[in-house]
Amino acid sequence: MTRTRNDLPTLPRRQSRGIRKAAGDEEQSVPDPSRIWTRPGFLIRRLHQIQSGLFLEKCGTSTITPLQFGMLTVLTEYSDGADIGTLAFQLGTDRSTTADVARRLARRGYIEQAPAKTDRRKMVSRITKEGRVCLRNKEPCMQVSQDLLLQPLSPKQRVALMDALRILVRVSYDKGRAKMRL
Amino acid sequence: MTRTRNDLPTLPRRQSRGIRKAAGDEEQSVPDPSRIWTRPGFLIRRLHQIQSGLFLEKCGTSTITPLQFGMLTVLTEYSDGADIGTLAFQLGTDRSTTADVARRLARRGYIEQAPAKTDRRKMVSRITKEGRVCLRNKEPCMQVSQDLLLQPLSPKQRVALMDALRILVRVSYDKGRAKMRL
Repeated sequence: MTRTRNDLPTLPRRQSRGIRKAAGDEEQSVPDPSRIWTRPGFLIRRLHQIQSGLFLEKCGTSTITPLQFGMLTVLTEYSDGADIGTLAFQLGTDRSTTADVARRLARRGYIEQAPAKTDRRKMVSRITKEGRVCLRNKEPCMQVSQDLLLQPLSPKQRVALMDALRILVRVSYDKGRAKMRL
Repeated sequence: MTRTRNDLPTLPRRQSRGIRKAAGDEEQSVPDPSRIWTRPGFLIRRLHQIQSGLFLEKCGTSTITPLQFGMLTVLTEYSDGADIGTLAFQLGTDRSTTADVARRLARRGYIEQAPAKTDRRKMVSRITKEGRVCLRNKEPCMQVSQDLLLQPLSPKQRVALMDALRILVRVSYDKGRAKMRL
């Protein structure tokens, strides 16, 4: 938790060839900004990779994935259970990915799937006691990885980032996921 | 380019069941924020999906991918060509993904691969004339998709977002990608 913008590992010697040097940059563990650094698309893709890397680093590979973690979290908010469509909608995933994640969680005993009380034709998923224990156990490392991700920003910058992300995701929520087949 | 925060499609009737209603929300095309909306990880994953969706929507499926686009862009900045390690470093991708993207571009004639002038054992990629034409042709739709992505934000919010993204990607650049094998 002590990383700062200047606390960067040095660039491997051979790698520095071919990478243009930026004036005033003492250490280069990142490429000298190419034109792609002006594109939100590039930065968002990289940040997505980075946060997955941090999650893996802090929570380990044997643990649940961020998506499984998200599904368990969402399910704590549905005491009557949630069907695949609802989970897909909440997580922003397509139905087949969602069903797959649910199957994996069910196999590990973290959720159970049963017909809905109100509509027996509909299967709903509910978080189990084991699922809640898993969530509780994994919450600290997840939190550390998220804190670590944002740690280079000032409190004001963090708020600005989270606000901007929430607005963008909210406005374009239906983009980039398979259309709902209800 | 006329979307606003209020210009959201309505939620399908069946979907609204099971989604908790937020007070003061007139239209619901997004789920009522679950606890996961407070996590940068969730928002960044969703935004990554959204921008891929927008790129596909504006540039079409038959076109090059965002990563191929990025590689061509980077190669315009290396007149002597760039090896896979350099491209991987610039794009933040692992070597095998990078080599795969380069192969695809080479197959389409957008780049050519040849031994480096300074080190014949090293293969470097160079952008071809066809590659530059492709870039020029695709630049407008790429730009539209990026503009559309950020359009819901005020100019000030856009700057804040881009600044925050740049800082985070810069500080944690080495996370979330396969370690360089040089």
